[in-house]
Amino acid sequence: MMIELCKELFPINRSITGDGVRASLKILQKRIPIRMHEVPSGTKVFDWTVPKEWNVSEAYVIDLKSGERIIDFKNCNLHLVGYSIPMDAVVSWEELNKHLFTIEEQPTAIPYITSYYREFWGFCVAYNEYQQIDRSSSFHVVIKSELKDGHLTYADLIIPGETEKEIFISTYVCHPSMVNNELSGPVVATFLAEWLLKKEKRKYTYRFVFIPETIGSITYLHYHLDVLKERVIGGYNLSCVGDERTFSYLPSRYGNTLSDKIALHVLNNTTTFRKYSFLDRGSDERQYCAPGVDLPICSILRTKFGDYPEYHTSLDNFDLVTEKGLSGTLDVYKKCIDLFELNFTPKVKVLCEPQLGKRGLYPTISTKSTGATVRNMMNFIAYADGTNDMIDICNIIGVPYWDCASFLQPLLEKDVLEAIG
Amino acid sequence: MMIELCKELFPINRSITGDGVRASLKILQKRIPIRMHEVPSGTKVFDWTVPKEWNVSEAYVIDLKSGERIIDFKNCNLHLVGYSIPMDAVVSWEELNKHLFTIEEQPTAIPYITSYYREFWGFCVAYNEYQQIDRSSSFHVVIKSELKDGHLTYADLIIPGETEKEIFISTYVCHPSMVNNELSGPVVATFLAEWLLKKEKRKYTYRFVFIPETIGSITYLHYHLDVLKERVIGGYNLSCVGDERTFSYLPSRYGNTLSDKIALHVLNNTTTFRKYSFLDRGSDERQYCAPGVDLPICSILRTKFGDYPEYHTSLDNFDLVTEKGLSGTLDVYKKCIDLFELNFTPKVKVLCEPQLGKRGLYPTISTKSTGATVRNMMNFIAYADGTNDMIDICNIIGVPYWDCASFLQPLLEKDVLEAIG
Amino acid sequence: MMIELCKELFPINRSITGDGVRASLKILQKRIPIRMHEVPSGTKVFDWTVPKEWNVSEAYVIDLKSGERIIDFKNCNLHLVGYSIPMDAVVSWEELNKHLFTIEEQPTAIPYITSYYREFWGFCVAYNEYQQIDRSSSFHVVIKSELKDGHLTYADLIIPGETEKEIFISTYVCHPSMVNNELSGPVVATFLAEWLLKKEKRKYTYRFVFIPETIGSITYLHYHLDVLKERVIGGYNLSCVGDERTFSYLPSRYGNTLSDKIALHVLNNTTTFRKYSFLDRGSDERQYCAPGVDLPICSILRTKFGDYPEYHTSLDNFDLVTEKGLSGTLDVYKKCIDLFELNFTPKVKVLCEPQLGKRGLYPTISTKSTGATVRNMMNFIAYADGTNDMIDICNIIGVPYWDCASFLQPLLEKDVLEAIG
Repeated sequence: MMIELCKELFPINRSITGDGVRASLKILQKRIPIRMHEVPSGTKVFDWTVPKEWNVSEAYVIDLKSGERIIDFKNCNLHLVGYSIPMDAVVSWEELNKHLFTIEEQPTAIPYITSYYREFWGFCVAYNEYQQIDRSSSFHVVIKSELKDGHLTYADLIIPGETEKEIFISTYVCHPSMVNNELSGPVVATFLAEWLLKKEKRKYTYRFVFIPETIGSITYLHYHLDVLKERVIGGYNLSCVGDERTFSYLPSRYGNTLSDKIALHVLNNTTTFRKYSFLDRGSDERQYCAPGVDLPICSILRTKFGDYPEYHTSLDNFDLVTEKGLSGTLDVYKKCIDLFELNFTPKVKVLCEPQLGKRGLYPTISTKSTGATVRNMMNFIAYADGTNDMIDICNIIGVPYWDCASFLQPLLEKDVLEAIG
Repeated sequence: MMIELCKELFPINRSITGDGVRASLKILQKRIPIRMHEVPSGTKVFDWTVPKEWNVSEAYVIDLKSGERIIDFKNCNLHLVGYSIPMDAVVSWEELNKHLFTIEEQPTAIPYITSYYREFWGFCVAYNEYQQIDRSSSFHVVIKSELKDGHLTYADLIIPGETEKEIFISTYVCHPSMVNNELSGPVVATFLAEWLLKKEKRKYTYRFVFIPETIGSITYLHYHLDVLKERVIGGYNLSCVGDERTFSYLPSRYGNTLSDKIALHVLNNTTTFRKYSFLDRGSDERQYCAPGVDLPICSILRTKFGDYPEYHTSLDNFDLVTEKGLSGTLDVYKKCIDLFELNFTPKVKVLCEPQLGKRGLYPTISTKSTGATVRNMMNFIAYADGTNDMIDICNIIGVPYWDCASFLQPLLEKDVLEAIG
Repeated sequence: MMIELCKELFPINRSITGDGVRASLKILQKRIPIRMHEVPSGTKVFDWTVPKEWNVSEAYVIDLKSGERIIDFKNCNLHLVGYSIPMDAVVSWEELNKHLFTIEEQPTAIPYITSYYREFWGFCVAYNEYQQIDRSSSFHVVIKSELKDGHLTYADLIIPGETEKEIFISTYVCHPSMVNNELSGPVVATFLAEWLLKKEKRKYTYRFVFIPETIGSITYLHYHLDVLKERVIGGYNLSCVGDERTFSYLPSRYGNTLSDKIALHVLNNTTTFRKYSFLDRGSDERQYCAPGVDLPICSILRTKFGDYPEYHTSLDNFDLVTEKGLSGTLDVYKKCIDLFELNFTPKVKVLCEPQLGKRGLYPTISTKSTGATVRNMMNFIAYADGTNDMIDICNIIGVPYWDCASFLQPLLEKDVLEAIG
C-alpha cells in the first residue's frame, strides 16, 4: 500500500540536502533500483550554486522561568525553520519573537518555513501554542544544526524500453513531515516505476528522478540537459497527488506538448478536473518548461500546491492523504503512460470505406439500429488519413482511447489500417 | 412538377441492382440525356465486389388456416427484405417469426430492411398487422426472386462548360417505395440538370451520377477516381431533400472545402438550418470524403436521414414529401451553383478609395444618411485586396452574394475591380 | 489648455481647400513647427483630382417681405453648404426650399452639408428657424463665394528619432465650426507633438499630418506612399477625441497590426471601450488601410463619428467637448506612444529560472505569501523565450506594461534578460 510507504517516510527530516534525503532515498531503493548521486556544495549549476549541506540533531527552546521545552524539533520537524544556523543562546521574548512563525487563521497548524539562501534561524509554532508562551520569561534557544560543505543528494532510475526516446517522471524529496506535499509525489512515482518494471514490453525508456525541488531539478538539468532535450518526448512532474479532492491539470508553458495532449485526453474522459494556467505553476515545471530548457513536461495533480488550506503546514498529514487518493492518481498516470505506449498514426489502406463484413467486423443485416454499433470503428477509419494520431482521432470522434482497443487490433491485423508513425 | 416525377417513380421496386434501377433510370432519361452503364457482378471495386443482380416477380405469405395472403409484395415492395433469396416452403409460426421485421413503436409503419451481403430471406410488416397473424397457423412462404450473375446499373451525365473543372452532383436510385429517402435526391438532381442544360453559358462542367448507394459510389470511384480528383472543385450528395422541415448541412470530412463554404454562405443567408458533424454522415459522402478519395463534397439536406421518424419505413411517403419541400431545396442548390459560377477573386485596381462619383456610382451630395447606401459597395472594395474571393468578402461584410450583383458588374466594367482568379 | 486652442480655431470657416485651412494651420504653427504645402487644383492624385479652391466672403438670404436676413453665414459658417457656388438671385420659396437642409428630429441643430464634387448651392438651417420662414415671401440669395483654380493646403511635421522607422499620426482640418469632429483631432495631435518634441530621446521618428479628409489623405499618399510603406511601423488617425463619453477602438483592415495590438493593450488595461469593426470606418483609415496602401493605422476615438447625436451639426460644440475629454484621450495616446517606444523582444539569458536572490531581486525568506510578490516578474521571465514581444508577454501574464517597468530595467541591467529585437 502506498500509504504505508508514506508512513515509513513521514518522520524523516528532509531538506534540500542532508541525511534526511539520503535516508528517504534508501527506503525507496528497497523497492526500485534507483541510483543515488552526490553533487558537492559550491558546484555551479547554471545560474545557481549547490548550497551547503544541512543536518540537525537537536533543536528546542526552553522557557527559563518554567524550565520547560516549549518548542522541540523532536516532536515535529516543522518546528525548525529549514536551514537554520546553529544557535545556543539565552534571548528575551522580544528577540525570540522575531524568529517565531505562526498562522493566526489556522491556530492548530505549525507552518513550514525555510531560509535556504540567507543565514537565519527560527522556529515555527501553532498559533494556539504561541499564545501560551510566557512573554515575561527569557528563553534558552538551542539549535544543534550543521551547515557544512557537503553534498546535494538525488537519485534516478532508467528503465529501458525498445527505443531510446524517453518518458520523464520527476518528483521531489526535500520536504519534511508533510504528506501531500511532498511524500505523495515520490511514493506514486515509486509505485509507477514498479508497475513499469513489471511490464514485459516497453516501447519507451523511462527516466525517474527523485530530487530536491528547484536546486535539484536545476542541478539535474545542468548535467543532463542535452540528453534530455534529445530523448524526452513527454513526461510529468509529480506533486500533491495524494488527497481525494478533485484532479487538477497544470499545463506546460504553451500547453501544446504531447504530454499535455495525453493528460487532457485522459482527464477529459475520466473525471472532472480543474484546468490551471502555466501562470499558476510552482514546482519543478518552472525549470523543465523554462525558455531554452523547453522539455515537454506538465502536471496532473489533486488539489494544487498553494490551493489547499493544509498546504505547507503540519495539517498536510494523514487526514488529508489516503490510499484511495494516492491510487486514484496512480491510475490516471498509468493511463497516461499506456497512451504514450499505444499512440501511433494510423492510415487506412483501402480507398473508400473498407468492406468490414467480409472480415467479420460488421453485422450482415442492416437495420435502423445496427449503424450505431459500428459507428466508432467507422468514424475512427474515416479520420485515419495519416494526418492524425490516435489521440487526435479519439478526440475528433469523441471516444476515449480505451474504447478503441477492441477494434484497433483487428483493423491492423486484417490490413484495414497500417501504422505510419 | 417534381412531385409528379416522384409519383411516377414511386411504385418501382428498386434495389442496389436489378430491373427496378433500370426502369427508374429510363424514366429520368426521358427528361435528361443520362448515359446508362452496366458493371458485371463479381467485378472487384476497391475493397468490394459488385454483388449478384436481384430481381423479384412475386413474394407473399399465405396463412394456411385462412388461406389468405397475409403479406404480399404486390401491395408494397417494402414487405420483402431486400435481396431475399428464393423460397417456397411451408413453415411454422416459430420459423416464420424469425424472418419477420416490425416496429412496435410505429405500429402502422412497414420497416425497410435489406440483406445485401448475407444470404437471407424475410418479410417486413406493420406491427398492427403483425399482431393479427394467427400464431397457431402454419404458413406458405413464396419468394419468386432471382439472385444471379448480372449487372449493377448506374447512369451519369456530363454537361460541358467553359472549363474542364467540374461540379459533381451525386444521388442514389437504390431505394424502393420511399419518397424522401430516396426519390427526392434523384428528382431534385434531374431538375437541377434540366436547369443547367437550359443555361446559355456555364463556366464549369457538371457531372451528375445516379447510382446505387455505397456499392454504386464505390464502383463509380473505382472507374473515375483519377479524373474526379483532377477535375472536381466542388459538389454535393443529394439525399432527403423533399420534406418541408428545416434544412440541414452535413460537412465534408474537415468542413473546409469550397463546397462547404458555398453551402454555408447560401444557408446562412437564406434560412435557419441544423449544422451536423461529419460524424453524422451516412450516405455517399462516406465514400467521397474517405481518406485518399478526398473529394470536396458535402450535403445540404432537409431533415437528415436517420433523424426523422418516417425514415426507412413506409411512412416516408407523399404525406412527408411535397412540391414545396422539393422546390425549396432545388432553389438552395441553384443558389449554390450560381455561387460556384459567379465566384472570383477580385482586386481593386486603384490605390486609395476609388472616386465613384465620376463613374456615376456615388451620390454627389454628402449628407448624414447617404453614407449607408454605398456602404456595401465600399466595404466590398475595401476587402478586394486579392487575398479574398467573393464569398470571403461577402462573409466579411455580412452581405449575401446576391446583394452584390448590382454593383459588381459596374465595378468590373468601370475598371475599379479586376478578377485575378 | 487644449480647449483654448479649440476655441481659437472654432470660428474659422474651414473646408477641404481655402484660406480657412491656411488660417487654421498658421495657428497650429505657433505651437509646433509644421511645414505647410500647397498642391495645385487639377493635380491628379491616384483616382482623384485636387478640386478647385473655395473661399467665401459673405452668404445670406434676405426675406424680401420683411427685409430681414433670415439666414446669415456670418452667424454660423455651417449655414452655407460647403463648396456652394456664387449666387445672387431673387428666388421663390419653392425654389429656395430645394436648397435648404434641416433636421426635423433635432430642431435646434444646423446640419453640416457639403457638395464638393457637384456644383451646387444651398443653406442649412435649424428646423425651428426653417419653420418660421414666411413661405409667401420671395428671397434674395447672396453667396459671395469663389471657386477657382487654386491649391489644396496641408501641413506636416517630422520629429526625428533614433531610427528612420516612423510612427504616423494623421488628423484633418477641413471641418468648419464643429468641435469634436473636427477640432479635437488636430488639437490633440498638436499637443501630442509638443509632448514628443520635449522628449530627450525618441526611438522612432514621428510624422504628423494635418490634412483635409479624404482628398487630403489621398493627396498625401500620392506623394509619400513609397516612403510611408518603407518606414511606418504604426500610427493612428485622430478624429472625435474630445468628448467625455466612452472610448472607442476602430481597427485596421484586419485588426492585426502593431498599432492595433498597442491600442488594445492600452485600452484593455485602462478603460471600458467599444470595439468597432473596420466596416464601421469613416475617416482617413479608409485610405490608409485601403488595399495596396496597407499602412498599419487604426483609431482610438471617444464616441465614433456618426454615432453621437451631435455629429455633423451645430450641436457639436463646447457643450460636448471639454478639456477633460481631450486630455483623457491625449493620455491614452501618450501611453500608446510610450508602448511603441518601450516595446522590445526580451530573451532570458540563463537556463532554468534565474537566481534572483543573489541579484537583490528576490526576498530571502520563503513563506506562504512571498510567492505572490515576485510572480509578475517570474511570469514575465517565463515567457521571455524570444518568440514574444513585451506586449505579448504582458497580455499572456495579464499585466499592463506600466506595471512591468519597475522590474524590466533591473532585469536587463543585471543580465537576466537581453533585448533581441
